[in-house]
Amino acid sequence: MSRFLLKISYDGTNYHGWQVQPNGITIQQVLCEKLSVLTKENVGVTGCSRTDAGVHANEFFCHFDVHHELPVSAFIKGLNAILPDDIAVLNCLQVSNDFHARYTAKGKQYIYKFYDGDIPNPFLKRYTLTVPKKINDELVSEFCKKMIGRYDFCGFSSSKRTVEDTVRTITACEIERQGDVVCFKITADGFLYNMVRIIAGTALDVSNGKICNDDIINIINSKQRDRAGATLPAHALYLNKVFY
Amino acid sequence: MSRFLLKISYDGTNYHGWQVQPNGITIQQVLCEKLSVLTKENVGVTGCSRTDAGVHANEFFCHFDVHHELPVSAFIKGLNAILPDDIAVLNCLQVSNDFHARYTAKGKQYIYKFYDGDIPNPFLKRYTLTVPKKINDELVSEFCKKMIGRYDFCGFSSSKRTVEDTVRTITACEIERQGDVVCFKITADGFLYNMVRIIAGTALDVSNGKICNDDIINIINSKQRDRAGATLPAHALYLNKVFY
Repeated sequence: MSRFLLKISYDGTNYHGWQVQPNGITIQQVLCEKLSVLTKENVGVTGCSRTDAGVHANEFFCHFDVHHELPVSAFIKGLNAILPDDIAVLNCLQVSNDFHARYTAKGKQYIYKFYDGDIPNPFLKRYTLTVPKKINDELVSEFCKKMIGRYDFCGFSSSKRTVEDTVRTITACEIERQGDVVCFKITADGFLYNMVRIIAGTALDVSNGKICNDDIINIINSKQRDRAGATLPAHALYLNKVFY
Repeated sequence: MSRFLLKISYDGTNYHGWQVQPNGITIQQVLCEKLSVLTKENVGVTGCSRTDAGVHANEFFCHFDVHHELPVSAFIKGLNAILPDDIAVLNCLQVSNDFHARYTAKGKQYIYKFYDGDIPNPFLKRYTLTVPKKINDELVSEFCKKMIGRYDFCGFSSSKRTVEDTVRTITACEIERQGDVVCFKITADGFLYNMVRIIAGTALDVSNGKICNDDIINIINSKQRDRAGATLPAHALYLNKVFY
């Protein structure tokens, strides 16, 4: 058996997330099908994370094992020729058999995109969260600085989480404005279920004056879900980088 | 009766073009429905052009008549509150009763977007035409210069056209590269059916060396459809500006 690592990118709009599930088509399912067509083997694919329905990926990694090797260029070109337009293979590498797309990952970076233009933009509505009030860049930048560190983010995750250890280290957090689009960028050694969407919701509350930056550490330490902001919609969330 | 002019923008992906038709949902139909909801009148809307199924508009104008006036801000806010995410009202003006969105228009500008990156981009596939070979900016720029002028563009239009006069004046034509996206921008006093998509197809043939720039004037003057390039797909075409 040989193990390969795929670097892919996808527009998640039309998918029920990464993980195969009974109620809708998923990225994992499409990739498995196309890899099986290409290799004439029954191929399973293991992803670096389970992105939710509607979440996008500028960069996502997954590994698979095959009996009959193909050159990596054949995987790249072959898959891109048969994958739907909203999934693309960016690269492919042969890796050692103990490499694991999920467990080997040392960290991840997500981006949450806000649109705060005065004029609605129909081309961005699908890919950003349109907010009615201008984002206060200064307040949100200050919020970002407060989020960096090692904390128990129990209050910043959905009760549906399956892990017990809820301590994570946020290593970088910042905003970047590109015209009327504000990219909220956050890097950590790992994220809990819905964590980025809740942190982005808290950033929005800070921007709107609903939550004060001086209370952030108390809110984290309270571990109470209801003290943090709302879980923002999935369609404006992007897995941006995975670190190995 | 009072006449209003709407400036709108739309992502045409999910629509069968502007004009109401029996087989699918159109922008005109959605706007008429929403305006009728807002005004409680039966409102008809006249557009500045009939964009084809899948074509987008950064800027599109249409006029309508109502018995009971609303302030223009109420049309803008009211429509944006009830329109689907892929159609947006950018502005609204009251105009004289002899103003006509189509007949008063003095010219239009379209953009055709090519993507020629080495790595497929799933976020741009829906909005650009992915081409396998790098666009030759120099050859296409030279082609653009040759297209400017007053010609009979009979050979650069679909045989389905309904007009008799096929002479049009192209006043500007240029390309603008933004990374791996090449915007082919063309302005004229009017365009024949499929004219931009055929000119863009000819530009692509020039880029690929299939058509020589020295032959362009002969190809135009031949008035033969089969000497020009293919009609490129609609999803990469944008109505960009309308001049009154």
